[in-house]
Amino acid sequence: MHVIQQTFSVPYSYEVFFTTHLFDSGNPLLKNYLESQAANNLSKRLLVIADEGLIKHHPNLPAQIRHYCASVSGFELAGDILVIPGGEAVKNDMPLFYSLVDAIDQYSIDRHSFVIGIGGGAVLDLVGFAAAVSHRGVRHIRIPSTVLSQNDSGVGVKNGINYKGKKNFLGSFAPPAAVFNDAHLLTTLDPKDWRAGIAEAVKVALIKDAPFFEWLEANATALAHGDLPLMQELVYRCAALHMAHIGGAGDPFESGSSRPLDFGHWSAHKLEQLSNFDLRHGEAVSIGMAVDSVYASLLGWLDQASALRIVKLLQQLQLPVYHPLMENKDGVPSPVIKGLEEFREHLGGRLTICLLKGIGVAAEVHVMDLTLLDKAVETVRSLS
Amino acid sequence: MHVIQQTFSVPYSYEVFFTTHLFDSGNPLLKNYLESQAANNLSKRLLVIADEGLIKHHPNLPAQIRHYCASVSGFELAGDILVIPGGEAVKNDMPLFYSLVDAIDQYSIDRHSFVIGIGGGAVLDLVGFAAAVSHRGVRHIRIPSTVLSQNDSGVGVKNGINYKGKKNFLGSFAPPAAVFNDAHLLTTLDPKDWRAGIAEAVKVALIKDAPFFEWLEANATALAHGDLPLMQELVYRCAALHMAHIGGAGDPFESGSSRPLDFGHWSAHKLEQLSNFDLRHGEAVSIGMAVDSVYASLLGWLDQASALRIVKLLQQLQLPVYHPLMENKDGVPSPVIKGLEEFREHLGGRLTICLLKGIGVAAEVHVMDLTLLDKAVETVRSLS
Ligand SMILES: NC(=O)c1ccc[n+]([C@@H]2O[C@H](COP(=O)([O-])OP(=O)(O)OC[C@H]3O[C@@H](n4cnc5c(N)ncnc54)[C@H](O)[C@@H]3O)[C@@H](O)[C@H]2O)c1
Ligand SMILES: NC(=O)c1ccc[n+]([C@@H]2O[C@H](COP(=O)([O-])OP(=O)(O)OC[C@H]3O[C@@H](n4cnc5c(N)ncnc54)[C@H](O)[C@@H]3O)[C@@H](O)[C@H]2O)c1
Ligand SMILES: [Zn+2]
Ligand SMILES: [Zn+2]
Repeated sequence: MHVIQQTFSVPYSYEVFFTTHLFDSGNPLLKNYLESQAANNLSKRLLVIADEGLIKHHPNLPAQIRHYCASVSGFELAGDILVIPGGEAVKNDMPLFYSLVDAIDQYSIDRHSFVIGIGGGAVLDLVGFAAAVSHRGVRHIRIPSTVLSQNDSGVGVKNGINYKGKKNFLGSFAPPAAVFNDAHLLTTLDPKDWRAGIAEAVKVALIKDAPFFEWLEANATALAHGDLPLMQELVYRCAALHMAHIGGAGDPFESGSSRPLDFGHWSAHKLEQLSNFDLRHGEAVSIGMAVDSVYASLLGWLDQASALRIVKLLQQLQLPVYHPLMENKDGVPSPVIKGLEEFREHLGGRLTICLLKGIGVAAEVHVMDLTLLDKAVETVRSLS
Repeated sequence: MHVIQQTFSVPYSYEVFFTTHLFDSGNPLLKNYLESQAANNLSKRLLVIADEGLIKHHPNLPAQIRHYCASVSGFELAGDILVIPGGEAVKNDMPLFYSLVDAIDQYSIDRHSFVIGIGGGAVLDLVGFAAAVSHRGVRHIRIPSTVLSQNDSGVGVKNGINYKGKKNFLGSFAPPAAVFNDAHLLTTLDPKDWRAGIAEAVKVALIKDAPFFEWLEANATALAHGDLPLMQELVYRCAALHMAHIGGAGDPFESGSSRPLDFGHWSAHKLEQLSNFDLRHGEAVSIGMAVDSVYASLLGWLDQASALRIVKLLQQLQLPVYHPLMENKDGVPSPVIKGLEEFREHLGGRLTICLLKGIGVAAEVHVMDLTLLDKAVETVRSLS
């Protein structure tokens, strides 16, 4: 018997730029990046795919993009900008997915060209997946336009679409070529989307960065009311923490050793689903964090004052901390809490849940005490 | 303006085992591998997908697999073995692709389970792609059953399916968890498939390994006539050379710096396509290598004797060296040679073609002299 051992590493590198008014003719950031990727004697192609929900609020953007791209040496737009619907529904739309694959084919987007996705996390997940599987991966640039996509989903390495109602069942790990976060785009967000994105910042602060948590407390009211310079700082700090986790934990493609940053998420995923995605992801995460914080305090891990501070911060941010789906009703256990068992199976048989030992200090448990959990739900309800 | 630089490397590691009678109850190889991947208190699932063209010739294999897997601690078969058609047509079959995704979903194959593909390169490419995109990648084991898949496609990192007639348009880079090459499976191959797989060994010998080329010359007649021990040695040496290239060239996912081992392939891809895949890949590669070898000798790169040795070896292996599609007819240039321009575009504007400076010594050119190429085709025709 013979055996050959294969071992190699694949290096990845990309930059996330923070700017404002990316497509203003005076802003050289994207132009400089693209021109650094140009080749002699060859015009490379850009296929731009944009979120309709964004374009509705920035109707001049397509014209601006066309004008901007015309000034970039060595590149040309491949066909017209494709405007596709935004929001979660696009991730359920197989014909739309294949229409993007067709566009990549039809406009001869090869491994030397770029697909540029502009929009919320849903559009970026869809576009990223289409780019990742066409020609075994063409390069894609992300221009996230929501708080969540600028501080979390858009700066990471995952993409995906839903399949037969299963969230993100089809997808891949495919780092972007570059990411451009344009703060100005955020000004037109629905207030619920603005605030939902803040929940991920609270999450990452609670797990990793106590001073950031204090900063969020100090600025909660202004943030909730739409302060853009504060939001820029929040997005930057939150993106940096997410990126450090992906790049620094030794397992960016989650092949085993590393867990994603998922405090408050076990119940959030279930809540989103049970509410038929009526709850935004960040809203569900807020509820999940409130319950898990109080649970940790009942467990004696977190002092009670800290748990209360967390709930209060979420409330100041105008995020929900409670939902009736969390409740046991007439002796029937909450469907969310029943979801714990599914989560255990999803993890391959062993439950692993991220809890807090303090603000900025996370640790894992492998068992949840259901009686204590009920009590935590009750406590949060009384606070809400 | 702020910027965050993300940099990380993703490590990959897998073993390729060479054995015979893999599923004999006395062969512990696969059992040992799987049991090394088992977890406490949890039965992991195996979803086995097998090539009908193989099973037709090894009708006891499904029963043997069931029996073998029953003896593996910590694992269980997920449902029955799925037998799917073999050959290139499966890569055009979207409903079949989604039926595999559905099976992965239905049998709860998660990131702790394995998909096992058994068959030719086409089945492995299809199964590998389904595994790569489900749950953003579940682990897959390959059991290649053709010469080509044992010495080339099955030991590498690529998968893919065809899309709207475009070969491998959808696919990804996804290293297997492990590969098991069972020589006994090769005994039932159609002689054309047996020989076509040898063409890749000639290719890699010509580019990288002169002693291997001489070994092929010394054993050509026996190899062409089905000698299994010699074939085992061929498969091992050829797989090792392919794997060393993937792991050693610094760019396993072909993101830029590295070129695949594609001597003779620029015309081969076009020939396959124009013959409606009537020519097997290895047959087309054989024709491509013959022409490019003579071309290199006309160019003064390769001595004439070496070019003739190469053509003679291919003929001794009963591989074709010529096809009428290579010819200029009545002043109309050969459609294959016209394909050079497409290949240039495919490469992003700059032609790069692998040619020989000697047996075992490759180098690249960026221009092909069409008059010389016609002369090479003529020469090969006269030799055939
Ligand atoms: N890939 C990852 O790592 C990852 C991580 C977390 C979440 N996600 C995914 O992200 C998605 C959620 O993303 P999201 O929160 O950005 O929501 P979203 O993409 O659903 O966008 C919300 C709405 O805002 C609109 N919109 C976008 N930009 C706008 C703007 N600037 N002004 C006004 N409206 C605008 C959209 O059209 C949409 O209707 C989910 O599908 C989730 O699964 C992915
Ligand atoms: N992923 C890669 O890196 C890579 C590299 C090269 C080629 N490929 C792909 O590989 C495919 C070709 O693979 P192939 O040459 O193995 O041919 P194949 O998979 O088309 O198989 C040829 C025929 O042999 C049958 N068969 C399989 N095993 C058998 C056995 N042991 N006995 C009898 N019959 C058997 C199959 O059913 C099929 O009819 C192409 O689709 C090509 O694109 C992939
Ligand atoms: Zn989240
Ligand atoms: Zn080949």
